[in-house]
Amino acid sequence: MKAVGIIVEYNPFHNGHLYHLEETKKQTGADCIIAVMSGNFLQRGEPALVSKWARTKMALSAGVDIVIELPYAFAVQSAEQFASGAVTLLHSLFCEEICFGSENGNITAFIDAAKTFLEQKQQHDSYVQEALQEGVSYPRANAEAWKRLNATNLDLSKPNNVLGLAYVKAILQKQIPITPRTIRRIASDYHDKTFSHPSIASATSLRKALKGSLAHLETIAPYIPGTTKQTLEQYYDTYGMFHEWEAYFPFLKYRIMTAEEAELRQIAGVDEGIEHRLKQEIVAAPTFSAFMNSIKTKRYTWTRLQRICTHILTNFTKDQRKKTETPTYIRLLGMSSNGRRYLQHVKKHLPLPLVTKVSNLKHDPIYQQEKKASFAYAAIFPEPARTNVLKEEYATPPLLQ
Amino acid sequence: MKAVGIIVEYNPFHNGHLYHLEETKKQTGADCIIAVMSGNFLQRGEPALVSKWARTKMALSAGVDIVIELPYAFAVQSAEQFASGAVTLLHSLFCEEICFGSENGNITAFIDAAKTFLEQKQQHDSYVQEALQEGVSYPRANAEAWKRLNATNLDLSKPNNVLGLAYVKAILQKQIPITPRTIRRIASDYHDKTFSHPSIASATSLRKALKGSLAHLETIAPYIPGTTKQTLEQYYDTYGMFHEWEAYFPFLKYRIMTAEEAELRQIAGVDEGIEHRLKQEIVAAPTFSAFMNSIKTKRYTWTRLQRICTHILTNFTKDQRKKTETPTYIRLLGMSSNGRRYLQHVKKHLPLPLVTKVSNLKHDPIYQQEKKASFAYAAIFPEPARTNVLKEEYATPPLLQ
Repeated sequence: MKAVGIIVEYNPFHNGHLYHLEETKKQTGADCIIAVMSGNFLQRGEPALVSKWARTKMALSAGVDIVIELPYAFAVQSAEQFASGAVTLLHSLFCEEICFGSENGNITAFIDAAKTFLEQKQQHDSYVQEALQEGVSYPRANAEAWKRLNATNLDLSKPNNVLGLAYVKAILQKQIPITPRTIRRIASDYHDKTFSHPSIASATSLRKALKGSLAHLETIAPYIPGTTKQTLEQYYDTYGMFHEWEAYFPFLKYRIMTAEEAELRQIAGVDEGIEHRLKQEIVAAPTFSAFMNSIKTKRYTWTRLQRICTHILTNFTKDQRKKTETPTYIRLLGMSSNGRRYLQHVKKHLPLPLVTKVSNLKHDPIYQQEKKASFAYAAIFPEPARTNVLKEEYATPPLLQ
Repeated sequence: MKAVGIIVEYNPFHNGHLYHLEETKKQTGADCIIAVMSGNFLQRGEPALVSKWARTKMALSAGVDIVIELPYAFAVQSAEQFASGAVTLLHSLFCEEICFGSENGNITAFIDAAKTFLEQKQQHDSYVQEALQEGVSYPRANAEAWKRLNATNLDLSKPNNVLGLAYVKAILQKQIPITPRTIRRIASDYHDKTFSHPSIASATSLRKALKGSLAHLETIAPYIPGTTKQTLEQYYDTYGMFHEWEAYFPFLKYRIMTAEEAELRQIAGVDEGIEHRLKQEIVAAPTFSAFMNSIKTKRYTWTRLQRICTHILTNFTKDQRKKTETPTYIRLLGMSSNGRRYLQHVKKHLPLPLVTKVSNLKHDPIYQQEKKASFAYAAIFPEPARTNVLKEEYATPPLLQ
């Protein structure tokens, strides 16, 4: 059986994801599609609209065979660490290929760029350092450095190109025997906030349109599969909300206000004295977006600051980050009957434990952080949802499709 | 001018407090009554029903001349540290006497007991240690030890006797030139939860009867002055609530769930491995009272556990406690015109700075903790109250009556 891996967040699952999934099957001839998916918090440093379980359900309904969790320690990270965790996990399940969506769509461009990067890493890094010194943001510095190396046709101002390059770099750097492929994303930039295609729109634009409530579900219905719509409805009916940063702001503010600066400095990503700024600006900030706007500088991108806020919210420390640099387990979130057959086939040979009961992970530092993140995710609920959601995290067996 | 000190929490101010205040004036012939009052969190480890400002107003309306704050670092502590901070502050304002309410009512009993304690401290402590080893709670061990020393007529199972003894011990130990007096509390035990007198009831029973809402204000009206009633009404109208532990539980639970055990161990009062118990029992606890009941043991009294929870909520660390053992400033919360005259008279001679603007205290470790406690106190409000209450803490000048 040929397994092909995809790296996803599905926040929420939409027609663009469906297109990518079906094209992946068609182009690779895969017998089994394995998705490694961020959990309750996402790469850009924000809570997922709905829980990992709801998003797993969307994925399985759409035809993914196996969904495993990309642990918080890799998911809420820069592209490099995100990619490294994801590719390692897909390899541990013996994926022969990975297939990612990108704005570029040409795998040769990614492979060339990755090779150039590995060959000219030092030069690239010194360019970036120089630009950072001048107060340029990292993404711009990175894109500039590539331009100056005159070495890539990739437009690295496009977020999916950046992630794609990170996957290919991880594969080459770690010499992982996985073949990378890419499919061109259609009709929608990641950052698009308006709809320009009759059935495809970015997850960002869908979340914007949803405005955190069911009232606007019909607006986004043309862009999502029916099962996504049902799952969103069910989630909202059960929990009374979709998850957005603003709902977590009381906890973030509480934590920053009562923490010592020295404690904030221990949090992953809190460097270069940003803790002073956080402490100073939080005092009068009434909302998350007001807070973010008050701490933003040219140097710190919105995404980087959101990740810092997420790490503070979930108490992810530098010390923990050091202890969680390589995946130690494969956590199964869900599978189809086809996925189950695949796992039966490979499970005796897996290099990492395949985990269906997280109680077995009690002392694993990667799972320690997952637990903290799961609780932070549930903290905004009134009882009994708060305690029930937490139980779900501990006790839900992998979903079956 | 003769100043006399009283040590209060006024949670809320009631007729028993009024009786104590008026008797104090009568018996001491004081020209000026100075109250040192706990701030937003109280000695028993709980949030005050209404803010320090509202309670200062009640005190001034009832005839107190000067209200100063007993900082968190002394207020939310065992009787010994509470007394030590309070007596030191009253002495720093040149009080000649202090007058406390007690179940016993005879100052000689307190002085004798305090002397005995100082003479036989070692023996007393070894009795207590022995009893603690056997799993007896501290208050019982303490009372037992006194009985075995056969040295006091004070009933130390009564909380106001315990506090009174602590005041007298502090005076003798520090050789502070203040004369202690006591007035017998009438009609109501501190712990009484029902009403047995037509106009006097304990603060505990009043809070119980109030049930956190205005609806029951008329029930307690016979037991409180009209100005207390008005102030409670105003507070509720402005902020929509009275403060109770349950409202803070989401923040306490969030903090315990996301903190590492090693972090909890740094909190004042978290000793002897109680952090394991806290981490274990918090997971399924839906409410504060359920949590408290699940962590209670014979050894840990309810009050001690509540103080631990308050220290976790406000992030009061062992390290901070070490840095805050002696008062460093006198914070004025309010004064009458008579109080103002007194302060004019003494202010050039004060041994500690008299503070009316807390912005001057930025780097004072005692005030650092006050700030954290003030924010934790405000954390439960929706905006704009949350930010406004915080501004109040920083910007309110002393109230004038």
